[in-house]
Amino acid sequence: MRQLLMAGPDFSLAAMDPHSTPGFDGGKKKGKAALAAGAERLSSLQEKLFAESRAGGEAAVLLVLQGMDTSGKGGIVRHVVGSVEPQGVSHHAFKAPTPEEQKHNFLWRIRRELPAPGMIGVFDRSHYEDVLIHRVRGLSSGQAVEKRYGEILAFEDGLVSSGTKVLKVMLHISKDEQEERLVERLNRKDKYWKYNPGDVDERSYWDEYQAAYQIAVQRTSTADAPWFVVPADRKWYARLAVQHLLTATLEEMDLSWPKASFDVEAEKKRLQAG
Amino acid sequence: MRQLLMAGPDFSLAAMDPHSTPGFDGGKKKGKAALAAGAERLSSLQEKLFAESRAGGEAAVLLVLQGMDTSGKGGIVRHVVGSVEPQGVSHHAFKAPTPEEQKHNFLWRIRRELPAPGMIGVFDRSHYEDVLIHRVRGLSSGQAVEKRYGEILAFEDGLVSSGTKVLKVMLHISKDEQEERLVERLNRKDKYWKYNPGDVDERSYWDEYQAAYQIAVQRTSTADAPWFVVPADRKWYARLAVQHLLTATLEEMDLSWPKASFDVEAEKKRLQAG
Repeated sequence: MRQLLMAGPDFSLAAMDPHSTPGFDGGKKKGKAALAAGAERLSSLQEKLFAESRAGGEAAVLLVLQGMDTSGKGGIVRHVVGSVEPQGVSHHAFKAPTPEEQKHNFLWRIRRELPAPGMIGVFDRSHYEDVLIHRVRGLSSGQAVEKRYGEILAFEDGLVSSGTKVLKVMLHISKDEQEERLVERLNRKDKYWKYNPGDVDERSYWDEYQAAYQIAVQRTSTADAPWFVVPADRKWYARLAVQHLLTATLEEMDLSWPKASFDVEAEKKRLQAG
Repeated sequence: MRQLLMAGPDFSLAAMDPHSTPGFDGGKKKGKAALAAGAERLSSLQEKLFAESRAGGEAAVLLVLQGMDTSGKGGIVRHVVGSVEPQGVSHHAFKAPTPEEQKHNFLWRIRRELPAPGMIGVFDRSHYEDVLIHRVRGLSSGQAVEKRYGEILAFEDGLVSSGTKVLKVMLHISKDEQEERLVERLNRKDKYWKYNPGDVDERSYWDEYQAAYQIAVQRTSTADAPWFVVPADRKWYARLAVQHLLTATLEEMDLSWPKASFDVEAEKKRLQAG
């Protein structure tokens, strides 16, 4: 699954079917069961990552989630990351930058939210907005946007060198699926609050966004900080795929349980005495 | 269950059996099923709280968790609070104060972590440490500790007035149960990292801690910011009870889904057109 989803040099977003389920044979029921079955493994690896940091380990994980509105980023946070110990997760949803944030380089607010050692950091949107919406809606000059791809590469390279594994995921939905999900928000009084008329405006730039994603993913998918493009029309598949990618990332880190920094037998005696 | 757990003026910690399950008739299996069954209701209420804040609502919830080491505070965060949307939860574990924090009033670091409107804030330990460990271990003078009960009352009163519901929970375990849980950490290589020899030192002040809890709970349990003392020797019961308390707290808030701030039918047409 990992290889199928990884964006290599020949990556083509247009060639990816948002409704497909690469690397998984079953349907929704099997997919949900697989997700439930994988939670324990992920949780144990997260605990190991956290435990290592208590013993001085520097390693952390950064999961970057990008995707069009309604692509299911929140669902990933809840159903995949939500299965691990919350105190080992730092989650940040990046909104339109504040006036304060706008005064700084686009990476300034990103740096402030990076995961500490032992943590899994989750970015719901990220520095990639500065080469996506900024490119599509002309929020920055073309020249400024051009410069950012290189800045992002250097930034992520620095992260990796300092011990943070970087996992970048684009949740790829179809325009039709987005329509269905937006209509659902309009059909349910308890979902009105999630609906934003601005989303329909963005939707009219669909093709431009796809082009901007194609460029961003192609230029910034590296061996050390690869992009994975996850078909996301089927929520259950997207969740299973991200769980798989996150688990694989943690497995690659070759984590180990810290040795006891105390005399185990002596502590047992102290406990029984008290 | 709520009435049985609430600490009134006659509250006696010594009279509460940590192994009991007030207000619940079944055993572990039924308890776990009830917890799973209650997750959806809690989750829907949390979404409503969050939604209200998007429409300008000021309400928030603060869940304070206190208890001896190994009492299961982390498990509450994971298994109770973990069932709701992570972006609606702000979680903070208060450790021994940093030198910076020590320069300020004990409430300074607490204020910085209060939940924003729409959020459920969870404190794993809290300002109560300053009348618990400080009292037991003499980290502050008796006079300083005495003064804090009043400061806490005034502080929480202010919180409530500004729209934050305050729910305070003490997870009450027995000394024997703590021994079992600590021994388990010493028997499993993957749990060594959770073991801290200092915990055994604290354990030798067990009775003093119980007395400090008795005083703190009795003096600071008010109608608007009550304490609930939850027997916690059975983890499944403690989780179920806190879920119940949190759900009841949200229900009391009389939340409602925000009305649409846009023309629903017009938006449907726009969507279908695009």
